[in-house]
Amino acid sequence: ADPAEGRKLASQCKICHGLDGIAKIPIAPNLAGESQIYIQNQLKAFRSGKRQHEMMSVVAKNLTDQQIADLAAWYQSIEITARMPE
Amino acid sequence: ADPAEGRKLASQCKICHGLDGIAKIPIAPNLAGESQIYIQNQLKAFRSGKRQHEMMSVVAKNLTDQQIADLAAWYQSIEITARMPE
Repeated sequence: ADPAEGRKLASQCKICHGLDGIAKIPIAPNLAGESQIYIQNQLKAFRSGKRQHEMMSVVAKNLTDQQIADLAAWYQSIEITARMPE
Repeated sequence: ADPAEGRKLASQCKICHGLDGIAKIPIAPNLAGESQIYIQNQLKAFRSGKRQHEMMSVVAKNLTDQQIADLAAWYQSIEITARMPE
């Protein structure tokens, strides 16, 4: 899978999810640093209809396996750090 | 919603999602810094069956609205930073 290719494809995702994977809208999840497996599972679920969402079902419908792998590789490649409140 | 209460409840989530919301297993998503709305929507979807997963459907089944709100408040309270590869 090619994260650089995924970064280009993410131009259609960044409106809601951010290019860096920090969500821009509250109904969208962060994707930064998500495992490639999780993202692929969700995109394939949206594509097959196993998981449904008014926008994601449309977005995922025409994605190929390669595009899904590249997108997942891009978001997995983003490094995140988490700081818990005291 | 009470993040401190959510933090206690998260003792059942941390095995897969981490107390800090950084997933411990590849099939689980990160929850760190996720918006309260997104987490609540997903937990309620798992509880109602709108979204299904062999573990999450069981975990969510007995959660009350208050517990869902507290858990979501906890994970939202975690600060995350994302660094994209050059």
